[in-house]
Amino acid sequence: MEGQEKRSPEGAGHEPDKADIYGEDGVIRPSYIAQVAAAIADRDVLTLRREVGDLHQSELGDLLEALLPEQRRLLVSLLGEDFDFSSLTEVDEAIRLDIVQSLPNAEIAKAVQELDSDDAVYILEDLDQEDQDEILSQLPFTERIRLRRSLDYPEETAGRRMQTEFVAVPPFWTVGQTIDYMREDQNLPDRFSQIFVIDPSFRLLGSVYLDQILRTKRGVKIEDIMHETRHAIPATMDQEEAAREFEQYDLLSAAVVDENDRLVGVLTIDDVVDVIQEEAEEDLLRMGGVGDEELSDTVASISRSRVPWLLVNLATAFISASIISMFGATIEQMVALAALMPVVASLGGNAGTQTMTVTVRALATRDLDIYNAGRVIRREVMVGVMNGAVIAAIIGVIAGVWFHNLDLGIVIAMAMIINMLAAALGGILIPLLLDKLGADPAISSSIFTTMITDVIGFLAFLGLAAWWLKLG
Amino acid sequence: MEGQEKRSPEGAGHEPDKADIYGEDGVIRPSYIAQVAAAIADRDVLTLRREVGDLHQSELGDLLEALLPEQRRLLVSLLGEDFDFSSLTEVDEAIRLDIVQSLPNAEIAKAVQELDSDDAVYILEDLDQEDQDEILSQLPFTERIRLRRSLDYPEETAGRRMQTEFVAVPPFWTVGQTIDYMREDQNLPDRFSQIFVIDPSFRLLGSVYLDQILRTKRGVKIEDIMHETRHAIPATMDQEEAAREFEQYDLLSAAVVDENDRLVGVLTIDDVVDVIQEEAEEDLLRMGGVGDEELSDTVASISRSRVPWLLVNLATAFISASIISMFGATIEQMVALAALMPVVASLGGNAGTQTMTVTVRALATRDLDIYNAGRVIRREVMVGVMNGAVIAAIIGVIAGVWFHNLDLGIVIAMAMIINMLAAALGGILIPLLLDKLGADPAISSSIFTTMITDVIGFLAFLGLAAWWLKLG
Repeated sequence: MEGQEKRSPEGAGHEPDKADIYGEDGVIRPSYIAQVAAAIADRDVLTLRREVGDLHQSELGDLLEALLPEQRRLLVSLLGEDFDFSSLTEVDEAIRLDIVQSLPNAEIAKAVQELDSDDAVYILEDLDQEDQDEILSQLPFTERIRLRRSLDYPEETAGRRMQTEFVAVPPFWTVGQTIDYMREDQNLPDRFSQIFVIDPSFRLLGSVYLDQILRTKRGVKIEDIMHETRHAIPATMDQEEAAREFEQYDLLSAAVVDENDRLVGVLTIDDVVDVIQEEAEEDLLRMGGVGDEELSDTVASISRSRVPWLLVNLATAFISASIISMFGATIEQMVALAALMPVVASLGGNAGTQTMTVTVRALATRDLDIYNAGRVIRREVMVGVMNGAVIAAIIGVIAGVWFHNLDLGIVIAMAMIINMLAAALGGILIPLLLDKLGADPAISSSIFTTMITDVIGFLAFLGLAAWWLKLG
Repeated sequence: MEGQEKRSPEGAGHEPDKADIYGEDGVIRPSYIAQVAAAIADRDVLTLRREVGDLHQSELGDLLEALLPEQRRLLVSLLGEDFDFSSLTEVDEAIRLDIVQSLPNAEIAKAVQELDSDDAVYILEDLDQEDQDEILSQLPFTERIRLRRSLDYPEETAGRRMQTEFVAVPPFWTVGQTIDYMREDQNLPDRFSQIFVIDPSFRLLGSVYLDQILRTKRGVKIEDIMHETRHAIPATMDQEEAAREFEQYDLLSAAVVDENDRLVGVLTIDDVVDVIQEEAEEDLLRMGGVGDEELSDTVASISRSRVPWLLVNLATAFISASIISMFGATIEQMVALAALMPVVASLGGNAGTQTMTVTVRALATRDLDIYNAGRVIRREVMVGVMNGAVIAAIIGVIAGVWFHNLDLGIVIAMAMIINMLAAALGGILIPLLLDKLGADPAISSSIFTTMITDVIGFLAFLGLAAWWLKLG
């Protein structure tokens, strides 16, 4: 977990300090990248070992992302055994795959043994079955069984993210015995904050935090200080749900159990932080009409992933267009309507997006549910009426003055209020409905909300104009 | 930090299990809320103590949010000393303030002493200066000094979020001495994962993780197993930046130091998880044109916070309207143009939003910088051309067939390609420019991107129509 722990103390003098690698903007300094690139070009292994060998895995990951593909592959092969494979968990999937596929399977198998099991799984899970099997077959038996077990759980579950190294003791041990055991055992995980208590069949009984052990006298039995585990995570639980448990109960680590309540691994907060980040990013991108995109993806794959959204938008845009074309005669008689109608639609769209954003977020954090939905809907409608009145007044005056036509001002003001109400209702009801139907409200709320505000905006404005101004 | 630790073991039998409070959808069950509400109405303190007294702070927080304002206040006063004040750190600010202000300052002072210092600061910081001073004056000296010191640091800094309880030992102590000290001292923090090493003037020398202590023989000196602190957080560091340190280096806790490198507190991962959540939420809301809004805010405050965004949008909408009105004569000759022009603008707007969302996110995660900007811009332009070609072909055929006008199909297809290119460039250059100017790209990127795609869309479509179809 902690790169600075693994370094040998003697290396500390050579180690480039954080400030050396990153500029003030938090981005790796170009001079450092140039220096590393030059050393790669010169095949200067000594310089590379000195400059890169002691980086934290995340720093090395940032460096890899800053280099060109051929430089990356060359750097990895030049460093050989000095290359810290855990840095691959810190780079984009495309980069990770490119590097791993450039290496012989035997070398990957060797590297994977040095990693924590969760990092090893992270790197192996993207490979195709054949390579995975070949690599696993070259591992020692216990290692292979552990990784295989993690990989057998579905993607994005706790079982995939867990670490299979942990400390577990029987309940009748004393604190003294436990401490002595930890002092002797050489196979402890790199870093851990609690130890687990299990029965002979590996069934989870509870856990003890390390500080609890440290503040207890040697003679006390573990079962007297352990607390029963309330938050054991089933291995098949979705990682997002597991992350929510961590957030709600401020957990640092949690036991992962199989279907028979047997301890199979431990999920740690650092992996959960990554999950939280990923999920937040996913919501943001989805609301912007983008899928799981990474900066290193190819033009073709990005284009393919974005086109479907645009096609849906094309369909809704033509619905709006057909509404407008119904009022062809009206527009012909007063071309000013053509200039003003996008104003009504655009403001409605933005107001709807505001409400929708708040709703989607509240649904994601489970702040919004059927018990307070009524209250929130009422509130949004009132906000819509208030803001609608303000915007309608301004827009009415501007339109009336611009086209020297008081009636036109009245018509656009009325249309605006109607559309702001539609925006408020659409912005909250559409995400709620999608959520109720089991769809992800982040994905398609915005396109439907804008469709509603476009249709209602054009219909209200052109319809009122035809009737009030007796056109068409 | 860990609610389940504080509970007395005897209480375990009474404690409502998680499944009892929450339904399958992760929301508190209505029957439970009704039961609590009934007990509140009956002033039935015994039932309340049994049903609510053993809840985890976050569960109690969820319950408070689900109750009506008067029920909340009544519940707090009925529970009296059994009310867990740390639950107030889990509710919306408006609810927290409402409850705190309903209590006499003397009672808050008493409750605050039971809390970890970070929770205490979280509750005190929202109060006005006068109440804060009165409450602090009723605290014991050391407690007062600690809280005052945290409150003196600016909002949203590490100093505000830190916990001032920590374990610190001199470097010459042995592991045995350290363990004995922890067994004797009654004033240890509730939960901790590392101890700090300081010199006589409290200057930070390093730290040792608890598992390191547990696996080391009693005779070894602390200075021989401590690691120098690379990631000490200055108390004045912005909480967002501190969170980034935690993420990058997978920290569980980090020392917070003052301007003289003296240890003043410790920042823990559970607070950092909250910061990460808040920041992700902020970005999402800002991109949707919403400020710091909570579900419990009043209609007036929400309306006020959303109107400025709509006013900016009003200004940009009228810029588009004035472009359209320039082509009044053209539209009069072919009303079909009025129906089709929002299609061009809408698709451009959505394509621009896709690019912009990716750009804003890449800037926030520091994946995008001046070194790879050129590459990313080229990529976005190519995606724009490819998707533009697809959409243009479809839109051209539909428009040509719909209005039986091949030339109109050609015009709209050309306009679409131009606008998709504008969308790609605007979607990436606007956030980059705002970031360069020191503005938050999440806030205003979307309004400027849509302005560009509206203006270019209308201009290209109507301009090409006037020229190609020889109208106007």
